[in-house]
Amino acid sequence: MAGRYAVIMAGGKGERFWPLSTSKHPKQLLALVGDRPLIAQAVDRLDSLIPPENVFVVTNADLVEAARAAVPMLPPENIVGEPIGRDTAAAVACGGALIAARDPQAVFAVLTADHVMGDPDVFRATLRGGMDLAEQNEILVTIGIRPTSPQTGFGYIESGEDFQVLENVQFKKAVRFVEKPDAETAQHYLNAGTFFWNSGMFIWSVPTLSRAFAAHCPGMKQLMDELKEYAARGEIHRGLEKIYPTLGKISIDYALMEKADNIVMACGTFAWDDVGSWPALENHFSPDENGNTLIGTCEQIDSKNNIIYSKDRLTAVIGAENLVVVQAEGVTLVCPKERAQDIKKMVAALKEKGSFEELL
Amino acid sequence: MAGRYAVIMAGGKGERFWPLSTSKHPKQLLALVGDRPLIAQAVDRLDSLIPPENVFVVTNADLVEAARAAVPMLPPENIVGEPIGRDTAAAVACGGALIAARDPQAVFAVLTADHVMGDPDVFRATLRGGMDLAEQNEILVTIGIRPTSPQTGFGYIESGEDFQVLENVQFKKAVRFVEKPDAETAQHYLNAGTFFWNSGMFIWSVPTLSRAFAAHCPGMKQLMDELKEYAARGEIHRGLEKIYPTLGKISIDYALMEKADNIVMACGTFAWDDVGSWPALENHFSPDENGNTLIGTCEQIDSKNNIIYSKDRLTAVIGAENLVVVQAEGVTLVCPKERAQDIKKMVAALKEKGSFEELL
Repeated sequence: MAGRYAVIMAGGKGERFWPLSTSKHPKQLLALVGDRPLIAQAVDRLDSLIPPENVFVVTNADLVEAARAAVPMLPPENIVGEPIGRDTAAAVACGGALIAARDPQAVFAVLTADHVMGDPDVFRATLRGGMDLAEQNEILVTIGIRPTSPQTGFGYIESGEDFQVLENVQFKKAVRFVEKPDAETAQHYLNAGTFFWNSGMFIWSVPTLSRAFAAHCPGMKQLMDELKEYAARGEIHRGLEKIYPTLGKISIDYALMEKADNIVMACGTFAWDDVGSWPALENHFSPDENGNTLIGTCEQIDSKNNIIYSKDRLTAVIGAENLVVVQAEGVTLVCPKERAQDIKKMVAALKEKGSFEELL
Repeated sequence: MAGRYAVIMAGGKGERFWPLSTSKHPKQLLALVGDRPLIAQAVDRLDSLIPPENVFVVTNADLVEAARAAVPMLPPENIVGEPIGRDTAAAVACGGALIAARDPQAVFAVLTADHVMGDPDVFRATLRGGMDLAEQNEILVTIGIRPTSPQTGFGYIESGEDFQVLENVQFKKAVRFVEKPDAETAQHYLNAGTFFWNSGMFIWSVPTLSRAFAAHCPGMKQLMDELKEYAARGEIHRGLEKIYPTLGKISIDYALMEKADNIVMACGTFAWDDVGSWPALENHFSPDENGNTLIGTCEQIDSKNNIIYSKDRLTAVIGAENLVVVQAEGVTLVCPKERAQDIKKMVAALKEKGSFEELL
């Protein structure tokens, strides 16, 4: 059996949960849901499936130390920092290169650091089944999540004919990857039953990935090969610094998944949420009798359906409805829930002012 | 000419501007409007009219040190602390006793520590005229403020026939004191032109006050006499501690002004505001082009008509309307402007919890 590995992709700008998250302390380093940083939970979930020395983390160069501190169970050299973000295709190639340098026949999972998942046994069964299939077949395995609501915030995968059942997990041929839909289309996807949320998690072998890159995105094949040489010499960071500035940005979906025809999708049935913004926290906490999600030191009077997150200090809310109120890292943020996507605009506006750098 | 004195009443629970104001640091000690604490501004306003050694401050016992620090131009012994609050009649009697011990014939003004005033020359002319009248007549002078809007948050004084013009200030006989009116009545008062805001400021001589107390509230006459003896021995605090716990609460309006018939009202035409709540700050700052009053380190996007007060730290507001958002002393407060009067409820609720004492 080929060696089994994982690459946890842990980039991110830390804008959506600002001011709690910042560029120096983005979402994956926060214990947003649960007691441990999300990235530590991502490593914990691999327990018994993939040994720690086979788990790599690809993150931003300036987050390497913080990430190492958050996942001390991993060998520090397994946490690798990209000097600049070059989207997911390059991160996958980087992870693939690190693994290929260890084991050219390895099978590995590409996982995310900042999602919240439940049902870890089902998750591990999905990975185990996918790895078995990826070892035995020239296929790219992607993990779809069976949708439970008509989400417009995720991309979708349309599934086709059955491929195999392994570990009680249904694997199907993937027909196509589609972008985030509008509400009507999302409802259609949900009703159809054949569409799955694109989780951004993948499983493949080093040789299959390498061949797929060669066929659909030769630049990534070259990147992976070159980085493998650097990794083999223990000089991955030197390689990244040399090559990354020459790369364009391209996502793994665009570079590979939307082009390849040998894609198999696992029908993921474990709980999964990307917790993409403050309002998404409502799904992970029990609201009070007025629908308020209160996290930390909060007091409310006559308030309804708010999300109040108060780290360390007291936040008091009177007669408010449908607001996000956050007090963290010395900053207070107030916005209606439906404007939470505009927190990025606020971060950008503050960045432009230049005087709030340590808060962003 | 009799000696001229002032008593600045500086009690207060510090609830209305919570969390900026607290019981240990109430409104009069804050530079809410202007660069200096309101109490220091109250002393500054007396410049050239009453020498600092003749200005007394009556405050809460646990605020004496903070008040002394805020008005270092006054002799420290002139700042006197009440062991418990017993409303304004007792505070006036206390101030009267301190002054009577120095000068039994003195004329003195009773002033407030936590109001915002403009036109200091007009204010001083009003005081000067009132003091002249109070010295020459057996009258209780009260200062009314000519209303500029139908305020429902103030009591009113109905004025009657002209009494005298002094220092360009019209003095009239006071007909009656009325409680805070409803909106319709307030509009009627404004239209009538004979009603003035009850500023809570008074001018009288020690003998006249003493006789008025004797006639209308003998307990206060006794209090003033007894405290005068303690003050004469330099033992005012001992006197307060001994006598105050035996007193009931009664306001000077109720004890005296609503009963006496020798009241003359100055028609105050200087700018005056009690700045009774966060929304009242709008009258003292220039809003941005969207009607936001931004004080301190604030940023807003797409927000209208908010009051945002951010002391030391950053407050960021997106898409909000008509809110009060305060970040001060490690606490964040959010409430709609029309709920600002319920901040007291929040303070009470937190008090009940018992774990936020240092924040209240």
